[in-house]
Amino acid sequence: MTLSIARLGSFHIGGKAVTVDGLETLTMQVTSDSPPITVEQNGQFEAFQMYVQYVKLANSSRRQPILFWHGGSLTGSTWEDTPDGRPGWQTSFLSAGYDTYISDAVERGRSSWARSPQIYPSQPIFRSNREAWRLFRIGPELGEPFAGTQFPYEAFENLAKSIVPRWTCNDQPTLDAYAALLDRVGPSVIVAHSQGAAFALEMASRKPQSVKAVIALEPTGVPHHPDERLRSVPHLFVWGDHVKEHFFWGAPRIKSFEYHGNLRALGVESTFVDLPERNIHGNSHMLMSDRNTDRIVELIAEWLKTK
Amino acid sequence: MTLSIARLGSFHIGGKAVTVDGLETLTMQVTSDSPPITVEQNGQFEAFQMYVQYVKLANSSRRQPILFWHGGSLTGSTWEDTPDGRPGWQTSFLSAGYDTYISDAVERGRSSWARSPQIYPSQPIFRSNREAWRLFRIGPELGEPFAGTQFPYEAFENLAKSIVPRWTCNDQPTLDAYAALLDRVGPSVIVAHSQGAAFALEMASRKPQSVKAVIALEPTGVPHHPDERLRSVPHLFVWGDHVKEHFFWGAPRIKSFEYHGNLRALGVESTFVDLPERNIHGNSHMLMSDRNTDRIVELIAEWLKTK
Repeated sequence: MTLSIARLGSFHIGGKAVTVDGLETLTMQVTSDSPPITVEQNGQFEAFQMYVQYVKLANSSRRQPILFWHGGSLTGSTWEDTPDGRPGWQTSFLSAGYDTYISDAVERGRSSWARSPQIYPSQPIFRSNREAWRLFRIGPELGEPFAGTQFPYEAFENLAKSIVPRWTCNDQPTLDAYAALLDRVGPSVIVAHSQGAAFALEMASRKPQSVKAVIALEPTGVPHHPDERLRSVPHLFVWGDHVKEHFFWGAPRIKSFEYHGNLRALGVESTFVDLPERNIHGNSHMLMSDRNTDRIVELIAEWLKTK
Repeated sequence: MTLSIARLGSFHIGGKAVTVDGLETLTMQVTSDSPPITVEQNGQFEAFQMYVQYVKLANSSRRQPILFWHGGSLTGSTWEDTPDGRPGWQTSFLSAGYDTYISDAVERGRSSWARSPQIYPSQPIFRSNREAWRLFRIGPELGEPFAGTQFPYEAFENLAKSIVPRWTCNDQPTLDAYAALLDRVGPSVIVAHSQGAAFALEMASRKPQSVKAVIALEPTGVPHHPDERLRSVPHLFVWGDHVKEHFFWGAPRIKSFEYHGNLRALGVESTFVDLPERNIHGNSHMLMSDRNTDRIVELIAEWLKTK
């Protein structure tokens, strides 16, 4: 399918200039075969900004664009090609007529990151291949897939290559940058994954007038109390398979089901999809990378049509 | 102008799994409102991989795609929108009929980065706003533009937000990943900037059969000796204004002029464009962001037509 695109590009948004002082000045050769330069480690540095890449269709058939917010230890590449090279959700939703905005969360990917402890108080965390395999519920142990998994595990290496370091100190600046993104783009649908889905649910409460719908794929957390201003914001929760087979996921699954119930009690339109209960089996945490991902795209597209 | 696009997406290439051991295991709450997890700091981690984003036209009118290689402390966002929001070179060259591949160098942006000193032996370097302003030749001192600069300095903040940390220990893995990229994509034209242009000149010598032309924008370095196998690889060098007004640039400018001379002596087609000598004044190091950047695109497009 050919896409007719009016404009594609990117911008950085949010963040602020931060001053660092008290560090020594270095003299070093920064690129091979070039003169040594003085590296002044003090001064003003940009921090907490967010990178956003957009694709605008020549004839978008939808009123609102989709903002894609990735999960922890990942970047916007989550929404591009799958690890085994199939088109990703960016392409699926462009094909369905939506303009798309894919961001890298603060501190990740093209959003850059800042010096610690001077700017970020904590140290980075690196995700090992074993942790990724298990936490993303590809299987019980690195190299062992669950029987019937939908994740294209033969291409796991490519997923592992897309993993980036993370910190635990930047939730507030990340939410601030997402808020700035909504202010810039205007009312949007948010499709968000894992940690990104927790941010999206929080943002719906913070800016209900700017969030036209939230699709929360396996959110790692939920807001403490749903706000009644959320009545204008339909919510869709989607959970995959093998949730009970990694200790981490039980609690977020239960919390998001409870939150869904609280939303409904308040009169908010909310749909909770447990894929195995709908007889869709074998999905990993990486729902957008799984072999049957087109079924999940279809499910979301159908749900969006009714909103 | 509407672009008809057959496929857009991304992949990671190159790199290898590296084992880390001897570190303690941490227990921490990684995302707010979610259960604490055990963070095993040891194990296998992917390192030295490269992120590549491609756009393939429905009817590309050129035999070879363009690979865009950015400079030091930057990412592939260099080739997207300019800091003041005009379409970047990605759009210009797509509009001219070329498929495009924009990579983030190893250790930068969506290519991820790895733990030091266990995987990278050296420490990251952070570029301050002052260093960027001066080194990119926007002006003599942060906030003071050169008279007549073509850089959209009122939007400098957006350039500064696109800066990422760098290391000095990854030239070889970066060249290896670029080589893997050429092996995957096949014969290509390389448009490269600054440190990326030094890598591109090196790669032309390493894989002359895969490099159809090199456009080197202000390369920070050049190979020690041109290789006579380069006779099949036309070279274009482009240098902007105010080169003598920052101590760093004099030497690379002279070296690239000498290298150009050596190439010609060997019978390699090489063109050296000093923009001020052609009466094009005020260009910064960020030629792709300058207000008159369309003139430089035109110059390159004209040159490519004759190759």
